[in-house]
Amino acid sequence: MPEIIPSDNVGIVTPQRHHFTTALALDCGRVLPQYELVYETYGTLNKARSNAILICHALSGDHHAAGYHHAEDRKAGWWDNCIGPNKPIDTQRFFVVSLNNLGGCRGSTGPISLNPETQRPYGPDFPIITVRDWVHSQAQLGALLGIEQWAAVIGGSLGGMQALQWAMTYPDKLRHCIAIASAPKLSTQNIAFNEVARQAIMTDPNFHEGRYYDYQVIPKQGLMLARMLGHITYLSEDAMRAKFGRELREGKLNFSFDVDFQIESYLRYQGRSFVDRFDANTYLLMTKALDYFDPASEYDHNLSAALAIAQAKFLVISFTSDWRFSSERSKEIVKALLDARKKVTYLDIKADDGHDAFLMPIPLYFSALKAYLKTVADESDEITH
Amino acid sequence: MPEIIPSDNVGIVTPQRHHFTTALALDCGRVLPQYELVYETYGTLNKARSNAILICHALSGDHHAAGYHHAEDRKAGWWDNCIGPNKPIDTQRFFVVSLNNLGGCRGSTGPISLNPETQRPYGPDFPIITVRDWVHSQAQLGALLGIEQWAAVIGGSLGGMQALQWAMTYPDKLRHCIAIASAPKLSTQNIAFNEVARQAIMTDPNFHEGRYYDYQVIPKQGLMLARMLGHITYLSEDAMRAKFGRELREGKLNFSFDVDFQIESYLRYQGRSFVDRFDANTYLLMTKALDYFDPASEYDHNLSAALAIAQAKFLVISFTSDWRFSSERSKEIVKALLDARKKVTYLDIKADDGHDAFLMPIPLYFSALKAYLKTVADESDEITH
Repeated sequence: MPEIIPSDNVGIVTPQRHHFTTALALDCGRVLPQYELVYETYGTLNKARSNAILICHALSGDHHAAGYHHAEDRKAGWWDNCIGPNKPIDTQRFFVVSLNNLGGCRGSTGPISLNPETQRPYGPDFPIITVRDWVHSQAQLGALLGIEQWAAVIGGSLGGMQALQWAMTYPDKLRHCIAIASAPKLSTQNIAFNEVARQAIMTDPNFHEGRYYDYQVIPKQGLMLARMLGHITYLSEDAMRAKFGRELREGKLNFSFDVDFQIESYLRYQGRSFVDRFDANTYLLMTKALDYFDPASEYDHNLSAALAIAQAKFLVISFTSDWRFSSERSKEIVKALLDARKKVTYLDIKADDGHDAFLMPIPLYFSALKAYLKTVADESDEITH
Repeated sequence: MPEIIPSDNVGIVTPQRHHFTTALALDCGRVLPQYELVYETYGTLNKARSNAILICHALSGDHHAAGYHHAEDRKAGWWDNCIGPNKPIDTQRFFVVSLNNLGGCRGSTGPISLNPETQRPYGPDFPIITVRDWVHSQAQLGALLGIEQWAAVIGGSLGGMQALQWAMTYPDKLRHCIAIASAPKLSTQNIAFNEVARQAIMTDPNFHEGRYYDYQVIPKQGLMLARMLGHITYLSEDAMRAKFGRELREGKLNFSFDVDFQIESYLRYQGRSFVDRFDANTYLLMTKALDYFDPASEYDHNLSAALAIAQAKFLVISFTSDWRFSSERSKEIVKALLDARKKVTYLDIKADDGHDAFLMPIPLYFSALKAYLKTVADESDEITH
């Protein structure tokens, strides 16, 4: 944390935790009789409870979206550049809620949690969770906080899928749906990459069919490979070239299998450091949630029909160099929304950073988001029920 | 093998083997005092020895490019659709030579071969081989067969890099250089994918720092993952969608980590079957040869300057949906050749199959190749020294 907290930072935040005892019926057919969710809030809920924003995180995200946990905290929350006083998601005007999703590994109930039935970690017995399951659990959190209707539900990537699902599952419980760098479903290639990542984890001898906690080991290599692969799909080819090119780490070829190129060093570092902060079973769950998301499938593959029930207004944002969830995928969403006569604003932002762009403070992106959310805030102020 | 050999098939072929005792100085600084190359030939060398074509294989290829090895052989050579009587590489007119490259695992000296100094497999002691090293060894094979000048050197992908290297290293020893679905060097993203593949192999606990032969195990999981990942980059996103879409293998989601989608099943099958026929150390070597290929690097990154020495005529072919080595990469080669005032024919073939297209009998591709090679054959007939 910087010595003086900048005026646009939410400062020190303390995660909160709630134990939910209302059973949650899951898409897989199983029921979670109880679960915990860890969350943070920034800003103040107004009297009309009309200014709440829900932040949905992506694959490796968590509840810590903004601010610092303590004075020595070196790293701010993952979306700190976007959430805070006078930032696009302005905490002077909004009450922002950010949670760790069910199945996560940062405090909410997930594979590393103790299964109350066995008093051992769930591990592979944790149920497969879908985007819709998340939305149901998030609705419980909203109810806990007394929020009858979100001013907006916002997410990037997998988080955008949650925002879209909110608009379909609880159409009257959000006024705006903001889906950034998202997709209406994974492409075959997206699924293929996820499958390689899963196989890397599941064939790691330390995986022990997901019961590695019992063996005091973790499937490090598998998780590292999954993350390295992920990083290739997060960066655009151009961004990779601009950042690393064919730069040699030691100025010459080694003629060995050690690191020759900077990009190799970068990927190995990203892979290794991920292992210390993320759980392999959670990674598997997140990739399945991505693979399974396909709201149109219940409507004869007609996305517009799936979205017909929505009442929210939509803001859809994509980035030109994103090849994981390309602009075309966002345009599919926009077209389906228009076909369903929904109100939708769409921005395709010129950016070199690939899928990662959704986390970057790109001026046009942030100013557009800020402008949009200002009208949402004004709207929220006018609500006085 | 079909019961009656089609008239356009080269029929049953027998691989040949030669033990070379002329030491080979390698780019890495080491010297191979002796080595063996396994090769096949199709067609007949004419009296002028002017009709020889060299086929250079790609990452997982070998010497068996056409025909069958015996009557019960179920699979023809890897480029059987292109090599044979009346096929684009017409064995009625050409003497075709196809070898397993040094470092390979199909008979030529490589990591699985016995190191004469230790009488144990080379394993990780096998030197890193470059594209230029291959070309030097291929030149020895040419000399053995009495070929002073190839009518053409032909290769796809990594094979195309060898063809280009021939034109630069032995400018007077080939009349035509045919580089298909190739690139003047790997992109950062290409290297990144190779690095993930290598890490998958090298972190497999059965890798034993490359000495797995001593332990009677193979790094199966790592090699399987490398191949799965490779397959994603060989197919275009469109081809994957057309072939597999989001088709479910059992008609429904399993809500488990078993195979849900057909694409997962395909990748697992490709990965598993590769393990039985390919050596992990060879895979590592092939990826390094790819990474290291960058002829312009010795000419201040001026590809045109690197190619200035070439005397061959060039045919460059790319495929519109290839994202591994995109058409842009071939166009870089063409531009550099034009800048160096070389004769070059370029075709960008509309194809949906991605990088794999170079192995497919796409009508326009094959008819163009056939027409080009007909003029090469006519030219060869006119040479009578």
